[in-house]
Amino acid sequence: MGRIKLVLSYDGRNYCGFQRQKNGITVQEKLEEALKKIYCSDITVTASGRTDAGVSAAGQVVHYDCDDRIEVKKIPVALNTFLPNDIAVISAKKVKADFNARFSAVKKTYVYKIYNDSIRDPLFPFCAFYPVKLDISLMKKAAEFIVGEHDFSCFMASGSSVKDTVRKIYSIDIKRKGKVISIFVTGNGFLYNMVRIIAGTLVYAGEGKIKPEAVKDAILSKDRKKAGKTMAPEGLCLLKVFY
Amino acid sequence: MGRIKLVLSYDGRNYCGFQRQKNGITVQEKLEEALKKIYCSDITVTASGRTDAGVSAAGQVVHYDCDDRIEVKKIPVALNTFLPNDIAVISAKKVKADFNARFSAVKKTYVYKIYNDSIRDPLFPFCAFYPVKLDISLMKKAAEFIVGEHDFSCFMASGSSVKDTVRKIYSIDIKRKGKVISIFVTGNGFLYNMVRIIAGTLVYAGEGKIKPEAVKDAILSKDRKKAGKTMAPEGLCLLKVFY
Repeated sequence: MGRIKLVLSYDGRNYCGFQRQKNGITVQEKLEEALKKIYCSDITVTASGRTDAGVSAAGQVVHYDCDDRIEVKKIPVALNTFLPNDIAVISAKKVKADFNARFSAVKKTYVYKIYNDSIRDPLFPFCAFYPVKLDISLMKKAAEFIVGEHDFSCFMASGSSVKDTVRKIYSIDIKRKGKVISIFVTGNGFLYNMVRIIAGTLVYAGEGKIKPEAVKDAILSKDRKKAGKTMAPEGLCLLKVFY
Repeated sequence: MGRIKLVLSYDGRNYCGFQRQKNGITVQEKLEEALKKIYCSDITVTASGRTDAGVSAAGQVVHYDCDDRIEVKKIPVALNTFLPNDIAVISAKKVKADFNARFSAVKKTYVYKIYNDSIRDPLFPFCAFYPVKLDISLMKKAAEFIVGEHDFSCFMASGSSVKDTVRKIYSIDIKRKGKVISIFVTGNGFLYNMVRIIAGTLVYAGEGKIKPEAVKDAILSKDRKKAGKTMAPEGLCLLKVFY
C-alpha cells in the first residue's frame, strides 16, 4: 500500500466542476473511473480543492491510496489511456502517508485570462471575451490594494457560508500579450468565486468604471456589491498548487 | 447591391468541415443561418476553399452578395451575435463585383501544430499529440525537398479524383516553442489532405523513420504509400488566404 500524488490538466469547459456530484459529469468521476480500470478496485481521490463548472486546470493535484501493482512512472500513461482527451495526468509521484492534497497545500496560483478585443476569437477558448479596451496600468494599481492579508468578504459569492473570510494574497501579476490579458493570482486560500470576482473588479478598474483606490474601500466595506461582477468560468485556470 | 468579403475564425473540432452537407453540421450552414437573420433573405457564401471535418481556421475568407441595409463596419458584430461561440467573423469589407473568394485567391498559408511530449495536455486543443521526440532540424531538411513546383500526387489522399496534381509550395517554416512544433506551409493550392500528409511525412523524418532525402524520392515516385501518414485534423488551421 502507498499514497500517490497526481498532477492533472483538464479542459473544464465540458465538466460540471471537479467534485463528483449526482447531476452532471465531473472530472473526479472520470478520474476515478480510469483508476478503477487500472487498479481493478474502487479508489477515491482527494483534490487540493474543487474547481467550479467550466473552470480548467493546468496543475490540479490529487492524492489516493493504492497497492503497488503499477510502477509509479507508468501511472500517467496508464491513466491517460482511459481518460477522455480533455483530461490528462501530467505526473505521478509516491508520497508519504501524511501528504494530503488538500490539507498539505500551502498556496495556489490561478490565472484568469481575458481576450480583450472588439471582436471575439474562437481560437482562444480558455479566455473570457471582453470587448471594451482595458488599461492594464490601472488594473495593476487596483491589484496593489488586494495583495496582503485581508477579510475578503467583498470577493466572495453571496450565499456562501464560510465563516473565516480572511485570506492572504501573496501576489497579483498582470500581463498583456497581444490581445490576451493574463491575471496571475497567488494566495494561501480562496473564497468561493474569489478569483473570478477579483478579475471582474480589476476589469472595472481597467475600463475606468471604478478608480483603483475604490478597491481598498470595497475590501474594507466587506460588501459584495462594492466589487466587480463574477467573470465567466472559462477564463479561469488553476495553474499550480504549492506544498 | 454589393459584394462583401468576410474573414472568419472557427474552432473546427465541432463541425463536419466548412462546406454545407446533408449529414452533419457545418460552418457554412451556421454562417448562412446568421446571414439570413441579419439580411432577412437567403444568402449563399463562397469560400476560398473547403476545410475538412475537425480543421480550424484563423483566416478563412468568404464572399457573398447583399443589399446595403447593414453598414459594412457593423457586419462582424451583427453576425457574431447570431453565430455560435466557436465561429466568429473577424472582419468585413466591401469588395468589387469581380472579387471571388475562391478564384481570386493566389496563395494560402496553413499551420499544422504538434504537441510533442510524452504526456498529452488538454490545454492545447489545436495541436495533434505526438509522444515521440522529434528533431526539427531533420524536419527542416526534409521540408527543403517539398518547397518548389512539383507533382504532389504522393501527398494526395488516395481516391481523390483531381487530375492536375502540380502545385507550388512557396515556403515551409518549422518552429518549436516549448512543447509545440508549428509547421507553416504556404502554397498556391493544396490537394486533398495535402498539408496533413506533409505534416505526417515531416514527422517521420523528425523521428528518424525516414531520411530527409527520402522525401525527394517520395515526390518523384508519385506514390501515396511512400509518404507519411495523414495527421489528425485538429492540428490543422487555415491561417491566411492571400489575394
